[in-house]
Amino acid sequence: MRRKGLASMAVQAVERATSFGPAVALSCRECGERVPLGPVFACTSCFGPLEVAYELPLGDPEGLRRRIESGPANIWRYAPLLPVPADVASRPNLRPGFTQLVRADNLARELGVTGELHVKDDSGNPTHSFKDRVVAVAVEAARAFGFTTLSCSSTGNLAGAVGAAAARAGLRSCVFIPHDLEAGKVVMAAVYGGDLVGIEGTYDDVNRFCSELIGDPLGEGWGFVNVNLRPYYGEGSKTLAYEICEQLGWRLPDQLVVPIASGSQLTKIDKGLRELIALGLVEDRPYRIFGAQAEGCSPVSRAFKDGQDVVRPVKPDTIAKSLAIGNPADGPYVLDIARRTGGAVEDVTDPEIVDAIRLLARTEGIFAETAGGVTVGVTRKLLEAGVLDPSLTTVVLNTGDGLKTLDAVAAGPSVTIRPSLGAFREAGLG
Amino acid sequence: MRRKGLASMAVQAVERATSFGPAVALSCRECGERVPLGPVFACTSCFGPLEVAYELPLGDPEGLRRRIESGPANIWRYAPLLPVPADVASRPNLRPGFTQLVRADNLARELGVTGELHVKDDSGNPTHSFKDRVVAVAVEAARAFGFTTLSCSSTGNLAGAVGAAAARAGLRSCVFIPHDLEAGKVVMAAVYGGDLVGIEGTYDDVNRFCSELIGDPLGEGWGFVNVNLRPYYGEGSKTLAYEICEQLGWRLPDQLVVPIASGSQLTKIDKGLRELIALGLVEDRPYRIFGAQAEGCSPVSRAFKDGQDVVRPVKPDTIAKSLAIGNPADGPYVLDIARRTGGAVEDVTDPEIVDAIRLLARTEGIFAETAGGVTVGVTRKLLEAGVLDPSLTTVVLNTGDGLKTLDAVAAGPSVTIRPSLGAFREAGLG
Ligand SMILES: [Zn+2]
Ligand SMILES: [Zn+2]
Repeated sequence: MRRKGLASMAVQAVERATSFGPAVALSCRECGERVPLGPVFACTSCFGPLEVAYELPLGDPEGLRRRIESGPANIWRYAPLLPVPADVASRPNLRPGFTQLVRADNLARELGVTGELHVKDDSGNPTHSFKDRVVAVAVEAARAFGFTTLSCSSTGNLAGAVGAAAARAGLRSCVFIPHDLEAGKVVMAAVYGGDLVGIEGTYDDVNRFCSELIGDPLGEGWGFVNVNLRPYYGEGSKTLAYEICEQLGWRLPDQLVVPIASGSQLTKIDKGLRELIALGLVEDRPYRIFGAQAEGCSPVSRAFKDGQDVVRPVKPDTIAKSLAIGNPADGPYVLDIARRTGGAVEDVTDPEIVDAIRLLARTEGIFAETAGGVTVGVTRKLLEAGVLDPSLTTVVLNTGDGLKTLDAVAAGPSVTIRPSLGAFREAGLG
Repeated sequence: MRRKGLASMAVQAVERATSFGPAVALSCRECGERVPLGPVFACTSCFGPLEVAYELPLGDPEGLRRRIESGPANIWRYAPLLPVPADVASRPNLRPGFTQLVRADNLARELGVTGELHVKDDSGNPTHSFKDRVVAVAVEAARAFGFTTLSCSSTGNLAGAVGAAAARAGLRSCVFIPHDLEAGKVVMAAVYGGDLVGIEGTYDDVNRFCSELIGDPLGEGWGFVNVNLRPYYGEGSKTLAYEICEQLGWRLPDQLVVPIASGSQLTKIDKGLRELIALGLVEDRPYRIFGAQAEGCSPVSRAFKDGQDVVRPVKPDTIAKSLAIGNPADGPYVLDIARRTGGAVEDVTDPEIVDAIRLLARTEGIFAETAGGVTVGVTRKLLEAGVLDPSLTTVVLNTGDGLKTLDAVAAGPSVTIRPSLGAFREAGLG
């Protein structure tokens, strides 16, 4: 670490005060201890995860609503509720968010849903996954802390999101991936011109390596979006909650079905919903949050069903690779939220995931990533089990794009024929 | 053809009057002859192409502007200027459009542009290409004409757009592709659950087959978006012009760089700009339109450079497959527009296309399809030649997504190492 003079530290403190908008500190999720906003992620007292604490603009919901509605059609319309500077919308960033909330009437009919069914389709983001939201907030923190290199460990979506965001922001990027990643994901990670480092080992090996690098002088000036910038990064997921409610006409959905990887996204969606209630932007009514996992990586689902509070790590084996985190850091918080809101956690098999991808494509013209197959599959399963109420307003998340997991869906021509009307007639498709 | 009673024809005429909003007829681009709105595409007098004629809402630009701005964040905000019903936004469709107009300051610096440089990034559409715009308008026409099957010939982007749009609209789809298409594009075409027919032959064979099918009883009730629905389909491209001007603050760009496949998109963008001027929504100032082709399929560029009015067909050979139309139907109109507006038509080689894809990704975090490499490459070439003015406001179109043409860009890790700080130090990337 470099030593800094008192004067420069004071200047930095003032800059931070404006760089993070309504955010005032980091606070420990376990013991509540507060520390100044900085590139730290674990409580020094109890090692609990730190999260961003705010002084939110309470007391004028009408004014806040108008301010949001007159903002840009991306996540920066919610700048008053995020750890970002007020002028964030005019800075060079990818401007993710305000993706479509699709009224899924065709899917509702197939699933026997009589209430409103919506799909929040985050494949519309710049690099076609929800990761653009979290990375965009992390980039602003990286700038505020003076980091010059943006980094992460990744098995796919995050690598592309970091590479693209760094390019636009004028930051260097250096992304670490397992050396045996699929070619398509490697291209997406490399095309933005940052450094891409293949690591001989598993994703766990890549993660361990990144933790070492943060503690080493080699990693000075590096912001790892999902490690030392994690408290800021995580806040980006709140925007999913904000958008869903605004797009429903400033109304809470009754039921949400959210995928679980580390579990962070689900906990931040819950945080976002509670903020909207506290701010008076939506009516305070009960909502239920349901978590969705792939059977091949379902430690949270298993703990939920077993009535446990702790999540026992598993070795992932599923086609839903973007959800394949065997030891989900926020698993216990997910269990808390599912139980507190009257939700549940459920899982589906790989064949059920593929079926659900096809079902969503066939009914709504949305080609989802495997993670979207997980949420749609779990929605179907929970409806059949009578756990989800078909008469209520339900929102299902699709967090990624089918183009990135093409191999999961073996789809081809119905028939191949010679170019003649006779051949077409024989094929019986007329 | 089925015979219809007079009463049912009258009902149909009334329905059509509201189904097509401000559109009042089809008119021949060559001889000006008008025919009623119908599923026809060629003038019976001179075989010229038919296009949609309007009674546009002239005389109240302020009211029209407010109406547009309070509309949805997709192409239906421009419903008053399109051949669609007034309630189109509430119908089941993919809601494409209002994609990002990205202020490309990093790219501008690299290219020596001192004025404003913007990229209109249509990879943000539902199936990640501009085809969603044209198909969405064609779907409304298909509904109005009572077609029950949506069809097209395609080599990629269009197949996915038609499949997805038909799924959402509740129409059957049957799409024809060459049998030897890349696996990725086949999946995108098949996943939405419509019929996908591989044709043993080239894209030209597929096209010829579709023309036969339209004339045959087998094809009754079929709307081919790019054949018998072509006049409506084409109008979808006008929304690119509308959005660019609205996103510039209701201002014409000085220079536009547009890719040329059939040439239709470029002609419709010009039509859209002229409409905005006529409606008083933008100030009437000169603008220049530049066409961009790949050298391996550059019949319009060649004709432009040779001072010809006719376009001599070529056999395409380029990685920019979505622009590989050797006999572009609207080529002569493109030449007209480029000359009339003081623009030009230029082409770039395949290596220049790949360079340009990487340049755009590296500077702006936008991963473009090969067609985007063509427009960015041509922009660079025309700037270097002093043809494009670097001090003006320039908009470059990216009409598709790099995820669909991954093979064009061979990108990989900078280095592969063991998971150790020592190995990383030796790699020299710290
Ligand atoms: Zn603590
Ligand atoms: Zn004519």
